This record gives sequence, structure tokens and C-alpha cells, in this order.
Amino acid sequence: MTDQYAGTPSDGDRPMLPVLRWEEPPDGPVLVLLDQTRLPAEEVELICTDVPALVRAIRTLAVRGAPVLGIAGAYGVALAAARGYDVEEAAAQLGSARPTAVNLAYGVRRALGAYRAVVEKGADEKAAAEAALAEARQLHREDAEGSAAMAAKGLALLDELLPGGSHRILTHCNTGALVSGGEGTAFAVALAAHKAGRLRRLWVDETRPLLQGARLTAYEAARNGLSYTLLTDNAAGSLFAAGKVDAVLIGADRIAADGSVANKVGSYPLAVLAKYHHVPFIVVAPVTTIDPDTPDGASIEVEQRSGREVTQLTAPPQAGGATVRQGVGVQVAPLGTQAYNPAFDVTPPELVTAIVTEVGVVSPVTGGGIEELCARSRQVTIS
Amino acid sequence: MTDQYAGTPSDGDRPMLPVLRWEEPPDGPVLVLLDQTRLPAEEVELICTDVPALVRAIRTLAVRGAPVLGIAGAYGVALAAARGYDVEEAAAQLGSARPTAVNLAYGVRRALGAYRAVVEKGADEKAAAEAALAEARQLHREDAEGSAAMAAKGLALLDELLPGGSHRILTHCNTGALVSGGEGTAFAVALAAHKAGRLRRLWVDETRPLLQGARLTAYEAARNGLSYTLLTDNAAGSLFAAGKVDAVLIGADRIAADGSVANKVGSYPLAVLAKYHHVPFIVVAPVTTIDPDTPDGASIEVEQRSGREVTQLTAPPQAGGATVRQGVGVQVAPLGTQAYNPAFDVTPPELVTAIVTEVGVVSPVTGGGIEELCARSRQVTIS
Repeated sequence: MTDQYAGTPSDGDRPMLPVLRWEEPPDGPVLVLLDQTRLPAEEVELICTDVPALVRAIRTLAVRGAPVLGIAGAYGVALAAARGYDVEEAAAQLGSARPTAVNLAYGVRRALGAYRAVVEKGADEKAAAEAALAEARQLHREDAEGSAAMAAKGLALLDELLPGGSHRILTHCNTGALVSGGEGTAFAVALAAHKAGRLRRLWVDETRPLLQGARLTAYEAARNGLSYTLLTDNAAGSLFAAGKVDAVLIGADRIAADGSVANKVGSYPLAVLAKYHHVPFIVVAPVTTIDPDTPDGASIEVEQRSGREVTQLTAPPQAGGATVRQGVGVQVAPLGTQAYNPAFDVTPPELVTAIVTEVGVVSPVTGGGIEELCARSRQVTIS
Repeated sequence: MTDQYAGTPSDGDRPMLPVLRWEEPPDGPVLVLLDQTRLPAEEVELICTDVPALVRAIRTLAVRGAPVLGIAGAYGVALAAARGYDVEEAAAQLGSARPTAVNLAYGVRRALGAYRAVVEKGADEKAAAEAALAEARQLHREDAEGSAAMAAKGLALLDELLPGGSHRILTHCNTGALVSGGEGTAFAVALAAHKAGRLRRLWVDETRPLLQGARLTAYEAARNGLSYTLLTDNAAGSLFAAGKVDAVLIGADRIAADGSVANKVGSYPLAVLAKYHHVPFIVVAPVTTIDPDTPDGASIEVEQRSGREVTQLTAPPQAGGATVRQGVGVQVAPLGTQAYNPAFDVTPPELVTAIVTEVGVVSPVTGGGIEELCARSRQVTIS
């Protein structure tokens, strides 16, 4: 079986690499991913030639973030089809690679639906594979357009909530171009504020245990010239207490029908802090993140990850002369220490000021508001 | 000038090493510290022969934790006196080594007061040095007795607040024997609950950026056989939401006259979470932590530490075959990233259920209650 392997990007002056792209070299189509586990020190691409390789890239977080997981899932189905693997089996593997990420399952379902529709019409495999790929490309495009719409709606909401026009925004985890077909979700709003000259500061939570904030959001903020400051997750309380946070902007991995938001662990404590300090807590996510089949927060399955992510430090590789081998954790806690390591937490709707999607803003966040939004969205009802 | 240097402990079967001890080898007295930056992988002692070495040990957190800093400060004055250095200058250097730690200044003041009293009587330097040492030893003893009293009072309070008798306690940073002349502060209460068969679980916050929870509290919990589980600081919210925290127990670095508590950064968010979830938030600290000259939380000077503690990962050394050189940080964030890195945060009295000291418990926490406690305490009024 073929595998994912590391390729060195060939372009010399290095604009920000696309997070994911479909390529068709002579020996068959591949899905090329920017390996996010090696940022910010190294920009290395992973070339996936089959679905198990892509599943591993998803599980190890080489590719991560709700919207882009959906796109990756769709391209994964297209890849299996184009290379003649068992498409149904590939779809099942991809759909369950990360249980909390509803977008992943959604992207898989879209490409699989397009594939099946052609197969059911009696067309050949090649036509079905092309249909799956076309659907993946369509999802990719929709996501980029969705990003732009969320950024515009999110900035309008910020300007409405904070008339001062000089926003100090706190964000958690990574929600920019690395997780999207476009500029992202929460980060896209901050970026829009920056481009409009209305971002005073982006406070970036480092986001333990995997440090997506320190590694990825700081990388995107630096690349885009934002005024940003990094902090440990537990230092956010001091910023709130000092009145230095005007709004919290986060993404979402899954939104239940009642408006409960599953997002990176550490989001819920920020929501409680924001409530206590009367600071708006805004969730920015595409409507595909809403799962009408999940009635409430208690029904959201939260992925528990290995305790080693907490008991060991795994440093990213260093550009030029690594001192730690990548992926080799250095034990921090005593050997035998057990750790509690949920990947996500769930914020109830009463702590969320607004949910910003590409089709509209829900505020206050209620089951009725969510339902109305879904009704407006072709995308949510397609499957 | 002589210096601190690493000594290898000679005892073979390794009971838990004392955090700090005074020794008098033939070439002059020394203060021996267990180097806490190298735990849990290695138990290495630092031998300080002068005050600059001790100041460096304090600044680099080789010795840390409010009560033991006071003891170290007192022994530091005794060390300067015994070795014939300028005692007043040594006291000034020690007193300002960490601005937020009121105990450090208190310990220095006690030993310096004893030294001066003898000098003023016209006695020789040797007698004055002996007086400083006796005062340091007395402070050391008082602290051990204080730990035992806090543990007893804290456990009684827990049993009163939580009649079930099977406590699930969340703690932050490190507050055990490593920070004390005895069993510590908050950890001593958890340890007493464990010994009494009433500790169901100790939840240990890892405590970024320096990971005192992962490295030191987990070490003490493991050494003492407690049921403990480590978590990232930002995962505490999920535990509260799931109803799995019965009480929060933390220490304090400084308590203002109005009952505001300065403690390791991350304490304040826990206090807000505890309030939101109606969970008792209990501060355990010796009365020396109370600073009547600091009227309120806003008057507490909070130490800002280097941003490198956040932008770089510095792994502790590994027993047998290090993969990272100690103290050599591995860059995590993009180069040039600025970080906000306060060492402490301040929790206002309205979020604190009780302050447990060796002389009594203040609950509810009010300026009047604090004042009354101080009046009861010989120690606070001695200087």
C-alpha cells in the first residue's frame, strides 16, 4: 500500500502555502496537505496517495480544523474513487477519523452522494470519480466564499457591539486559512478588522496541549501583519480582569440544535469569563457545523485524546538543526501519571452572545434561531 | 565569588529529599536546595555558598513557593552573616528577588531583625550571625507546625462544606512539601484528606507556563500515593461542567488587607468557574502571606516574567539520556512573537469561599475578618 510522504515545496519565495490541494501527477492523483504539525518552523507538504494516509494525517492533526476537514474528507472520497479503491469503505474510514468533527462527515457525505448518484445511473467508475472530485472542488469553493461572508458579517457585528472601532479580540485555537478553503472563521473576522484598520490587538491563547494558538494562529497573525500577543490559556483571566478584552471570537467543531457549541478545550472557561465580565462571546462557523441531529450539548460526543499529549512535551521541529526529534515526547510529569485530555468542551447557548455563519447571525442563540438559520441554508438540508 | 553548584545526593534509597537545609561543612556554611527545575526526572541539590547564588536560585525558580521562600530568605541572611558578607546589602538583594512574594521579604526581615538586635547590643558579628541562624531555624519550625495546623483546619472545613466525605479536589500550581518547611498549604489539606481516607481524586492543573503542577504536584501526589489526574489548565472547565469538582484548593503568594488573593496565574479563572458552578474556592496560606500594608487587589504588584517562557518550550531534563539540554528553550511560536506572561493573578475576596491559615479560617472573606485574624497572630505583628 502506498502512503503519505513528505515533499519539499518547490517554490522559492514562499508565499503562504495552500493548506490543501488536489494534484494529478503522471502516476495518479494525490491530495497534498500542508503538514500543520511542523509549523511554524518548517513548511512541509504531505502527499497522500490513498485514504489510510489521509486518515492518519487527520488523526495526527497534520490537517485539522473543522471546515478544512470537510474539504479533506470530500477529496478523500474523490481520491479513493479516482484510484479505484473501495469508495464506500474509504468513506466509512474517513467519516469516523475524528468523532466530534461534524464537517468531516459532511464533506465525506457530499462527495459520496455525488459518486453514488452517478453509479446509480449506470455510468462507469471514471464518471463517478469525476463527479466526486467535482463535488469536492465545489465544497472547497463554497468554503472560500463562506469565509468571506462570515468575515463580513462578523466584522459588522463587532462594529455594532463595540462602537469604539478599536477592537481587542481574544481568540483560542486556530481558525484561519489553515483550517479553511478561504480565510477561515473567527480568524477571518479578526483579519477583516485588521484590514479595515479596526483591530487594536489580537490576544492569542496558546491552546494547550497541542499549542495550535502559539504555533498556528501566531503564524497566521505574523504572516498577515496583525498586532498580536501570545498568552498561556490561564492568563486570559488577567486580561479580562484588567478590562483588556473587548470580545472573544472562536470557531466551532459542532453546534447542536439548541445552539450548544463544541469547540477546542478551553473555550468553555473563556465563555464563563466573558459572561462574568460582560464581554461578548462570539462563535464564527459555517452552517455545516450545525448538526440538527444533535439535540443538545449533552448529546455531543467529546473525543478523549491520549494523556501523553499532557504528560509529555512534544516540541515542533526547528528549522535548521533540530534539538528534539519530531514526535518524540519528553516526559514532564512523573512516569505513570494519568491525564484527563478531552479535545473539546461544550459551551451552552446562554453563554454565547452570537453565532455568525455565512448565511446569517443568530443572536440571541436559541433553538428557534438555529432552526430558522438552517432553513435558510441549502447546504444543511442537502444530505 | 563562589557560586551555586550542583551536588549529587549521596543517600541511596532516596526518601523524598528535604526542599532546603542548612549545612556546615568544613569550608563554611551553605544552604542546600533541592533544584525544583529538574524535578520530577532528577533529584539534584544546589549548594549555595553566597547570597547572589541564592538570589539566582530564587529567580530561576530552583526554589519557589511562598512559605519556603520566606525560610530561604531568612537562611540567606544567616548565610551572609556567617560568611562575613554585607548583611544589609544581602537582605536588600534577597527581599527584592521576587516582588510579589511577601513571605520572602518577611523571612528576610525576621532574620535581619534578629541580627540587628544583637549588633545593636554591641555583641560581635559571630553572635549576630548565630542569632540570624536561630531565627531562620525558628521560622523553619514554625512553618512546619503551621502546615500541620492548616492541614487540620482545612480538612475540617472540607468535611463541613462537603458532608459526603469523598472529596474531589482541584488544585493549581504546587503547594506541598516542596514549598514549605512542612507538608505545605493547599496540598497539605489534600494530603490530610487522603490520609483520612476521604480524598476521592486530586485534579492537578498542569500550570503553564512552567508546569509546576505537571512536574511538582504530580511528583508529590505520586510520592504520597494519592489518586490524582493531571489536566491542562484549560480542561478544568470541562470538569466543573461535568460536576466532577467538589472544591478548589489553592495557595497564595500575597493576600491583601481586603482579602484579595494573589496566586499563580490561572487561579482567578478557576475562582470564576467555581463561582459559576457553586463550588467552594478555598485559599490555604500561612498568616505571613497576609500583607496588611497592601490595602486591596489593585495595589498588588504582579511580576511580569519573560515572554520566552511562553514562546519557547523548555523541557525538564530526562533521567538517563537527555534529548533536550536543560534550560535550552525550543521555539514554538514564530520568531519575534511577543507574549503576555504575568506570574500571578488576583482573585477578589467575593470569589473566595474561605481563607484557611494556621491560626484560623476566615469565611466569608472580608477586610474585617482578615484584620481580626491578624490581630490573633503574633507572627503578623512581630516585625
